[in-house]
Amino acid sequence: MKALSTLITVDNAIKLLANYLKELVILDVETVNVLDAVGRVLAEDVYASIDRPEEDISAVDGYAVNSLDTTGASYYNPVRLAVKVVYDPLKKQGNLCVEPGTAIKVHTGWPLPCNANAVVMSEDVEVKNGFITVHRPVAAGTNVIYRGEDFKRGELLATRGTVIKPPLIAALAASGIDKVKVYRKINISIIAIGDELVEPGKEKAPGKVYDSSSYIVFSMMQKDGVFNVKYPNIVRDDVNELEDAVLREFERGVDVVVTTGGTGISESDIIADFVEKRGKFIFRGVRMRPGRPTSSSVLDHKYLLIHFSGFPVAAWAGYEVLFRMAVIEWLGIRGLDRLSIYARLSRRVPNVVGYKSIVRVAVFEHGGEFYAEPYMLRGSGVISSLLRTNGYVIIPEDVEGFEENTRVKVYMYE
Amino acid sequence: MKALSTLITVDNAIKLLANYLKELVILDVETVNVLDAVGRVLAEDVYASIDRPEEDISAVDGYAVNSLDTTGASYYNPVRLAVKVVYDPLKKQGNLCVEPGTAIKVHTGWPLPCNANAVVMSEDVEVKNGFITVHRPVAAGTNVIYRGEDFKRGELLATRGTVIKPPLIAALAASGIDKVKVYRKINISIIAIGDELVEPGKEKAPGKVYDSSSYIVFSMMQKDGVFNVKYPNIVRDDVNELEDAVLREFERGVDVVVTTGGTGISESDIIADFVEKRGKFIFRGVRMRPGRPTSSSVLDHKYLLIHFSGFPVAAWAGYEVLFRMAVIEWLGIRGLDRLSIYARLSRRVPNVVGYKSIVRVAVFEHGGEFYAEPYMLRGSGVISSLLRTNGYVIIPEDVEGFEENTRVKVYMYE
Repeated sequence: MKALSTLITVDNAIKLLANYLKELVILDVETVNVLDAVGRVLAEDVYASIDRPEEDISAVDGYAVNSLDTTGASYYNPVRLAVKVVYDPLKKQGNLCVEPGTAIKVHTGWPLPCNANAVVMSEDVEVKNGFITVHRPVAAGTNVIYRGEDFKRGELLATRGTVIKPPLIAALAASGIDKVKVYRKINISIIAIGDELVEPGKEKAPGKVYDSSSYIVFSMMQKDGVFNVKYPNIVRDDVNELEDAVLREFERGVDVVVTTGGTGISESDIIADFVEKRGKFIFRGVRMRPGRPTSSSVLDHKYLLIHFSGFPVAAWAGYEVLFRMAVIEWLGIRGLDRLSIYARLSRRVPNVVGYKSIVRVAVFEHGGEFYAEPYMLRGSGVISSLLRTNGYVIIPEDVEGFEENTRVKVYMYE
Repeated sequence: MKALSTLITVDNAIKLLANYLKELVILDVETVNVLDAVGRVLAEDVYASIDRPEEDISAVDGYAVNSLDTTGASYYNPVRLAVKVVYDPLKKQGNLCVEPGTAIKVHTGWPLPCNANAVVMSEDVEVKNGFITVHRPVAAGTNVIYRGEDFKRGELLATRGTVIKPPLIAALAASGIDKVKVYRKINISIIAIGDELVEPGKEKAPGKVYDSSSYIVFSMMQKDGVFNVKYPNIVRDDVNELEDAVLREFERGVDVVVTTGGTGISESDIIADFVEKRGKFIFRGVRMRPGRPTSSSVLDHKYLLIHFSGFPVAAWAGYEVLFRMAVIEWLGIRGLDRLSIYARLSRRVPNVVGYKSIVRVAVFEHGGEFYAEPYMLRGSGVISSLLRTNGYVIIPEDVEGFEENTRVKVYMYE
């Protein structure tokens, strides 16, 4: 099998693919409203344009005081402070000050009046006849948020490549920023290849099967938020038909064409025939299981294609541990990594040395500890292996397997 | 402070709110294409409509054999099997059988020819002059995926309330299902209340602040995928203006109006004035920090409102641990829970007994162990406490705090 000898490692495939993406796909920058930016990838570093807060403010509802006025206050020797003026921070009261022996009522977020350096919480004072009674000394700075404590003008809030999440949107908004530059979404077309394939929802003759591999790739890409994916199309096992379909997509301006199926790494491999005719393989087959047939090619020296297996779990693996990692590397994306946990394997999982195994596991919690139950390894066509698990473990190429009870890192599905 | 005595626990607030949602919001069901269903909530139980696979199939590229023909095979006494016929599963070859002493070439996913009960992988045989040489006995079932092994016709694939994720989409597609019933999205309008508020991107006078609380709630809701959220509007601290704005939204058919700000739980609380005029509080203030002012009300006996603090981190907490949990409870949603990990606290975090504390932490990994560094507790207006952390720890109401090095559960931001 000539193809077998050319299989490369997952890491090398990611690097190669990231380089080709960098070279062949020009990803313009677009400006969007921050309210539409959630999940998008920042194409610029963003900085705070103001101090936040812009003045020293109260962190609580209470009374602004000068801490010196509370020195020596105790339960038996409380300090009484007169509350004489009504303060409204939105009205011009620039010269309103806490005079010695007085306090001024403030609400959370209000700028401190002049001479105040601390705030006593409403709960902690007695209010009577225009006076508050304080039973404890209050240190300077108590319940005060200082100017610029949240962030300072010019402070870096996030760097290019960051996936925009709600806290960053809040920080941008608080800084007065309503628009950000993000990378446009990567335009993807998916073509499912196979004479046996029938589109879900249509009548199916015996012996044919419903397409599901392109569906899992489509929905994973959609969920990741950085792609703009067209509904998948089915193409027969015919090189000319495939060629027409692929060229049509690139002529429409698509960035990458994804295929599922047709990658047997065997003599009847339609992808190989197609690539031979118009382009070259970047790599053909990867040392991973499932997902071994995952390949990538370049057409007419300019069009980039990624080829996933026709089996849903293998297509999933090709996307999950290879293509999306290449996109992350390409754009330097931070914030698309899967969350990971540590768990103990409930039983041994073997590995074929030289291959990276992606072992689907069902993580469960027992007595404050996470355990991972590996799903049977075979059957890259068995969708229930994904449906009944919630994460995966990666066994590196140089390891024969993990023993029962090994503490492993599990990447959780989202 | 009359309001303080009426504060309820987070758990009670969730239950109350879930009940009111159930009573006041009618959530119709809509039918969507499975390709548009990612992130939506199933409104029906879904069952497999066919066996998958529909026949016994090969799990690998190789040769279909009858295991009896390989009995006794060994390295020194290999078995030779004739490969006589070319098999194409898509052509009618119903009576094609593995005769004694023969094998038939198959590809991954192909139905087994009759009399075959195992498949020898291509890698494991020598092919020569129309014969394959097998060096080991092959057990019945080897490399075979049995009919219905993935799922059986009539098998439950997912239940009502499940958030639809890529593996389920693949299972539905593989089952021939192209449309599913999902709950329509919950229509939300957000109103930010405050004389001091300025919309990001606009000019801002000194003393005013940019609205960010409605932005964080908006983007979190948008990210969760079950809401259809309108861009936030700003309304002045004026009961009539607020009333007009709220009624306008409900008359447009919105399900829930969310407000941020105006909830001082103080005498100048505009939310209280507004609710007093037209409705009643379901609860006013919750025993949580941050997020204590979180309240909910019903207007004209039919319109449901949730009121978040005007401070971004408090608004975040009100949404994160209260409102979204009530929505999850209301619809019985499975699959929106935050992923959690265990980590050791890098230092002590105190709690005010009687309150649930939501402690933001920065989780980091060191030597295969996760540690959680708590962010300073004060300052529900300090957005950087969210920006610089990646998860939160919940300290229950009856606990005075967690000591340094305690192993705690951390809910990770997504």
